[in-house]
Amino acid sequence: MIAFSLRDIESWNRFYRANFINSLSGFKSACLIGTRSKSGVANLAIFSNIVHLGADPALIGFINRPKAAAPDTISNIEDTGVYTMNHIHPHMIEQAHQTSAKYDSSVNEFEAVKLNMLWRDDCKAPFVQESRIQYRLSLADIIPIPRNGTFLVTGYIEAVYLAEDLIDEDGFLPLEKYESITSLGLGSYYQPQKLMSLPYAKP
Amino acid sequence: MIAFSLRDIESWNRFYRANFINSLSGFKSACLIGTRSKSGVANLAIFSNIVHLGADPALIGFINRPKAAAPDTISNIEDTGVYTMNHIHPHMIEQAHQTSAKYDSSVNEFEAVKLNMLWRDDCKAPFVQESRIQYRLSLADIIPIPRNGTFLVTGYIEAVYLAEDLIDEDGFLPLEKYESITSLGLGSYYQPQKLMSLPYAKP
Repeated sequence: MIAFSLRDIESWNRFYRANFINSLSGFKSACLIGTRSKSGVANLAIFSNIVHLGADPALIGFINRPKAAAPDTISNIEDTGVYTMNHIHPHMIEQAHQTSAKYDSSVNEFEAVKLNMLWRDDCKAPFVQESRIQYRLSLADIIPIPRNGTFLVTGYIEAVYLAEDLIDEDGFLPLEKYESITSLGLGSYYQPQKLMSLPYAKP
Repeated sequence: MIAFSLRDIESWNRFYRANFINSLSGFKSACLIGTRSKSGVANLAIFSNIVHLGADPALIGFINRPKAAAPDTISNIEDTGVYTMNHIHPHMIEQAHQTSAKYDSSVNEFEAVKLNMLWRDDCKAPFVQESRIQYRLSLADIIPIPRNGTFLVTGYIEAVYLAEDLIDEDGFLPLEKYESITSLGLGSYYQPQKLMSLPYAKP
């Protein structure tokens, strides 16, 4: 095997190291997060570090970079308590990726990247009309990760919208049928193909 | 579109809801975490909620369920400060999945599921010999997520081992060439195929 020590990794230039470390930790569930600011500006940004925290109550988390680097989504969520998560399919990857550009807070990324806002009556945050799987969350906690200024933002699922009902009999949502993609590193996108499903494991 | 309200979701039985919510949040980077207990018992368990927190220093997080449900990995990490992460390829999925069974703390899951331990001189925790991508971490913080008793465990990457050098020129690690898999829900495994790589986005 080939070994890299911490000293090796630290010796790499920051772009090489960022690409390597960002891909080392594996495929991520890239998703578009929709919010609205206090002053009414819609915001859309791609996030890839999303975790399942619990099913009852249904609690999801995502990692937000330090506020200096990525201020809009987290401050909108702090202000309104509401956000949406929207899956990405192959025909919207370029637009989804483009939301990672550092637009000014006054810019509506939906307009900048040409995705359509979908407003629902009961929700202060916009959904992405093109997304086949959309869900609405209410903020639970913003948990600082002290070592590097990132945050774990946790929220409760309040409603789920599916383009069509492709749910398996046991509740499993076969994301490959909705063509939801996964991401790797800073800008690579993949389509997963199912290998197998295994039952609950017992000793 | 089909809409499910929180009331709908809460009305489902717990298995249906667990399957649905676990898959809704997207594809995850399943990985085997190797640890050793104070008394010397090796432990191996599959984890799927893994996040990239930063590249400099290289900081990775994973979600550990409440201690009553999943005690061994987190308590071994608390005791020794060291753990390994090991990618999963298609020929070891059944064994990797089987580590999710509730074995007693006295059981060495490597032996129970027939994966080989790889001990390296400088590391108190075992690697998985069959894994093509392995890395060693030192504990940074165990951060409680108060809403449901889960934890975000963060650690610094200390060393990385690759079966062969397939790193792209820019540092990107093309996991599809190592056949690293992704998981969905409680027991489904997928092979990602690359769709595209996009450059750093600018406004």
